Amino acid sequence: MMDWLNNQIEVPSESFYRLALTKQQQLTKPPGSLGELEGIAIRLAAMQQTTAPTIERIWVSIFAADHGVAEENVSAFPQIVTTEMVKNFVNDGAAVNVLSRYVHAQFEVIDVGLLKPVTLKKLITDRAGDGTANFSKQAAMTEQQLKQALLAGKAAVERAIMQKTQLFIGGEMGIANTTSATAIACAITGLSVEQLTGAGTGLGSKEIQHKSQVIYNALSLHQQQLRSPLKVLQSLGGFEIAALVGAYIFAAQQGITILIDGFISTVAALLAIEINPQVQLWYFFAHQSQEKGHQLVLEYLQAKPLLSLNMRLGEGSGAVIALPLLQMACKLHNEMATFEQAKITTN
Amino acid sequence: MMDWLNNQIEVPSESFYRLALTKQQQLTKPPGSLGELEGIAIRLAAMQQTTAPTIERIWVSIFAADHGVAEENVSAFPQIVTTEMVKNFVNDGAAVNVLSRYVHAQFEVIDVGLLKPVTLKKLITDRAGDGTANFSKQAAMTEQQLKQALLAGKAAVERAIMQKTQLFIGGEMGIANTTSATAIACAITGLSVEQLTGAGTGLGSKEIQHKSQVIYNALSLHQQQLRSPLKVLQSLGGFEIAALVGAYIFAAQQGITILIDGFISTVAALLAIEINPQVQLWYFFAHQSQEKGHQLVLEYLQAKPLLSLNMRLGEGSGAVIALPLLQMACKLHNEMATFEQAKITTN
Repeated sequence: MMDWLNNQIEVPSESFYRLALTKQQQLTKPPGSLGELEGIAIRLAAMQQTTAPTIERIWVSIFAADHGVAEENVSAFPQIVTTEMVKNFVNDGAAVNVLSRYVHAQFEVIDVGLLKPVTLKKLITDRAGDGTANFSKQAAMTEQQLKQALLAGKAAVERAIMQKTQLFIGGEMGIANTTSATAIACAITGLSVEQLTGAGTGLGSKEIQHKSQVIYNALSLHQQQLRSPLKVLQSLGGFEIAALVGAYIFAAQQGITILIDGFISTVAALLAIEINPQVQLWYFFAHQSQEKGHQLVLEYLQAKPLLSLNMRLGEGSGAVIALPLLQMACKLHNEMATFEQAKITTN
Repeated sequence: MMDWLNNQIEVPSESFYRLALTKQQQLTKPPGSLGELEGIAIRLAAMQQTTAPTIERIWVSIFAADHGVAEENVSAFPQIVTTEMVKNFVNDGAAVNVLSRYVHAQFEVIDVGLLKPVTLKKLITDRAGDGTANFSKQAAMTEQQLKQALLAGKAAVERAIMQKTQLFIGGEMGIANTTSATAIACAITGLSVEQLTGAGTGLGSKEIQHKSQVIYNALSLHQQQLRSPLKVLQSLGGFEIAALVGAYIFAAQQGITILIDGFISTVAALLAIEINPQVQLWYFFAHQSQEKGHQLVLEYLQAKPLLSLNMRLGEGSGAVIALPLLQMACKLHNEMATFEQAKITTN
């Protein structure tokens, strides 16, 4: 039932990669002087199989779900805030709304498992359950729920494809989801709970210690189950994290560029790599967040994020903030004069 | 004749700073979770004396000049490239042209002292001389030329003000100008030639050693003259560096926000601070370049640049690339819902 996750992911075009690399050497600048922007343009050319890559049609899907583990007091905000923020998203009031407008991205919000369903204009309902179970006591979700949540991510990308999207950004909202993501990161990377557990939306040091303990106990409880990335996800995950995993894998299968946001999204990106490694060929990592575990997981992935602005908001915001860099990289690649056109001496 | 440099620079409004700080606490996000973007919006509100800062009218002035020290073989490109790139700028073919179009900035190029005058449509001519003298043998410029170059910067800001510019970006073009900027940085900061000398547009390690030696000798030659920032600039400067100094100081005197580009621009920003310290209250530092000395000069200034993308192109390009961050910071500040508006629980 989850076989689609293993469907083949193509390698971006090597021939367009080489063409773009050559083009960069011909543009009127010292070779390499545009730094990371050169590599961005080259990779996008290879992904889009074109000599003139563009990032014009951008899609932002925000997956929202509740977490049973919130009852362990692991977040600075009460659980009801997940639903309240969903309302804020559909009313265009959140950071990611403002940013999506700025970059002219198409924007949608999906309820993949709030505690209780809400009826809101513009809210997409694709629920895997009434929040996850408290993973400090039992598996976060059933296999059926996992399958459902992964498909919710796939469905979002299907909608994006209908609009000819060139770049997919996934965001998340779910009170207590740094607890879930941290537990997953520990299970996959083998890094310690102490190393990876951070402040989330704003815990103090005592509260972080409590959060660590909850994660530590949960990892012990589920130890026997953590034998595969999908089992890790089922045991410790959130529905929104599973949706991101499904979205990333399906986007890569469809040849769509993926821009990864912060800690939660990076953990979903990590799980997706564990399931289908070639997915990473379609990733850009947008930023390094202030959340403690993010830097370590990025290092584990040997990922170099584009920005480091001490953000820690999630909801896709850091990814949208990095988006203009990709657009500018494309414009430079396509619109700069070559040495020959500009008649510039290069001896 | 250069008295205007010491005219007062106002402190951005403390009351609007405080209002903006309070507003940031009310927006629907965990406090501090927008990282550096919060501080950007707050500072811009204070600079613009408004509760709703915007960055809509952007001005990019590129100052181009030749350097006598180019005859010491300190650059990977021949001196003629300064003029050739000026043609590229007026023909809209350079990186900074593409980027300025992307952010809808007004763009101008000023000849502040190419080796020979050129007549080009759209080129502004405001020359301090036929290139500087070779500072490894004599002072780079006369006092009269220094005065003239500083005024060329002031004149650019005067044009920007006519267009109600909110943010000024200065760029530079001048083969061998990292040699000049490095010498200036050594003279002002006391850091060693070895620490500060880098590859410029692409020197190898042997050539960097030669460049270091040229700078070292020049610093010895002028030692007695390096008693004030203006004397340093006159002895070791380029006309385009002096123009940037004049532009930064006059922009700050006029209450215009300044976005500093890479190594050369940062050295000009350093000189401007040495001349009129309050100028720094109007600075944002756009990026940390790959040029070796840049990080050290930024540290000397205790400046935290917004981006670090291994760029090393100059011509204002890194500053324009950071510009969307300032715009997004403003949009978030102005357009996000507050907790009260969105009815979000914050206990």
